[in-house]
Amino acid sequence: MKILLPDTMPLHPELPAGWESVVVDARAEIPAEHHDARALVVWGSSKRHLASAAQDLPELGLVQSLAAGVEGILAAGFRDDVVIASGAGLHSATVSEHALALILALVRRLPESIAAQERHEWSSEIGGLQPLHPGDRVTTLLGARVLIWGFGEIGQTLAPVLRTLGAHVTGVARSAGERSGFPVIADADVREELGRTDVLIDILPASDATRHAIDAEVLAALPERALVVNVGRGATLDQAALLAALEAGTIAGAALDVTDPEPPAAEDPVWDSSRLLLTPHAAGGRPVGADERIAHNVRALAGAKDTAFLHRVN
Amino acid sequence: MKILLPDTMPLHPELPAGWESVVVDARAEIPAEHHDARALVVWGSSKRHLASAAQDLPELGLVQSLAAGVEGILAAGFRDDVVIASGAGLHSATVSEHALALILALVRRLPESIAAQERHEWSSEIGGLQPLHPGDRVTTLLGARVLIWGFGEIGQTLAPVLRTLGAHVTGVARSAGERSGFPVIADADVREELGRTDVLIDILPASDATRHAIDAEVLAALPERALVVNVGRGATLDQAALLAALEAGTIAGAALDVTDPEPPAAEDPVWDSSRLLLTPHAAGGRPVGADERIAHNVRALAGAKDTAFLHRVN
Repeated sequence: MKILLPDTMPLHPELPAGWESVVVDARAEIPAEHHDARALVVWGSSKRHLASAAQDLPELGLVQSLAAGVEGILAAGFRDDVVIASGAGLHSATVSEHALALILALVRRLPESIAAQERHEWSSEIGGLQPLHPGDRVTTLLGARVLIWGFGEIGQTLAPVLRTLGAHVTGVARSAGERSGFPVIADADVREELGRTDVLIDILPASDATRHAIDAEVLAALPERALVVNVGRGATLDQAALLAALEAGTIAGAALDVTDPEPPAAEDPVWDSSRLLLTPHAAGGRPVGADERIAHNVRALAGAKDTAFLHRVN
Repeated sequence: MKILLPDTMPLHPELPAGWESVVVDARAEIPAEHHDARALVVWGSSKRHLASAAQDLPELGLVQSLAAGVEGILAAGFRDDVVIASGAGLHSATVSEHALALILALVRRLPESIAAQERHEWSSEIGGLQPLHPGDRVTTLLGARVLIWGFGEIGQTLAPVLRTLGAHVTGVARSAGERSGFPVIADADVREELGRTDVLIDILPASDATRHAIDAEVLAALPERALVVNVGRGATLDQAALLAALEAGTIAGAALDVTDPEPPAAEDPVWDSSRLLLTPHAAGGRPVGADERIAHNVRALAGAKDTAFLHRVN
């Protein structure tokens, strides 16, 4: 039995007896000698590669994505009996770490510190004796109210760390309740929470329902001290409304790891907005536990006892 | 009974019956009408203020510092029967939060991201698909080996957060053992640990013994991927050796919240060192729990049953 691995990252899954792995060019069509493959791993793979896999691999039983989103795979036209499994969860640790880096950079005023360093200025506005809660700024997570919009695996990985740092964390999801020990409000009820939010974190996936979930109205409901971070998808936030709110000073700062469009055009005002920190979609992009996920789902494909596919999407 | 509070921060301690608080100018001599004070709180207080307090307050029984270091108070010449209590522990939450912000900024390459943003560049070196552990760089705390030199209250507040983020944390202190569930090595044995250290965090207090604890030899023992963060005191790190190591590329990056001297002179090369992030002694400076500490030690001064002074230093 043969599994095709992409050449876009090193992978070494422990495969069942009788299986072999072959690394193939993830941007090219599948070579004829590998048309007998039973499984395919997708990571940074081109449309052409996916189209070839859908057409040319009659024995295919499993497409294992290492990304959380599988829109491209679903659109490639695989037969209905091919199991498609997503990489959901493989990015929780890295994306939540990056979100924390961005939140703390804003709270601890690192962009302003870097600017002061460039001016050779030891800024007494940033350092020295300071009030803990100046009122017009969020300068610590101690006692801060953090709202995580999109409270899936990433949000639930991030939330306990924020709580350890002293923040009060609330999730926003389609339905209210409690998850992983954190209160969750329904997105329909978010407005009243916004007025007392210090840090709003967007971890929403892209969909028709989430497009511009964070819009001018949401931003206007935030207090002027509020900070906004997006590590979800660019289209979930109305970027023009964000830039306007930053310009008008109705929110205090923002950090975006994702933009709309992505990357921004050279003349996009997002590059030069003051109080906006940009990172180039650097939060994830590095699946953690990929080998174990692949090995598990290959065992499931091979019919191993008590082994169900993980994160099967079809 | 009267307690004098400094005008350098808002304080509202709950005092025992019969006590009153008066806010005084922490930079000036104590006004004659308050020479009957029984207790004094010190925060950003001038030498002149402390000298006046030592000379002019015959009823004084307690000097409560809100800073961890009390060198200035000990040097001011208070009578031997005046209890001096430090603010140790009041800065653990804020300093460990800032340390985490600096660590994550280096690991997640935020200074490089800000520079790329200024160039309107969506850098594929920083974002997109990346290896989890590139070998020549530390790009996540997942699996990273972190060495915390000076493993007191701040270090023990920071360590569990780093562990939650996936790091392996080791402390360095005068004596080896285990503290708060973390392995601690003696500073005499640190050399062999340095060679496998990804992030070295200096949280040492200033003393003759800790001066240049992190010197050229220590820095040379670190791998080229290593990152160095100092939130302790500037004099504990040989700054010229650090700049040389950064320039030579024998370490990958550094962040300093404290410098030597502090602030740096306008022409100090520390301002312009590439791969060095400076913040202006912004980690602490905001005591957390000051009211409770003051109230407790005033109760102890008033002879409350079962109430011993907290963090008495004399």
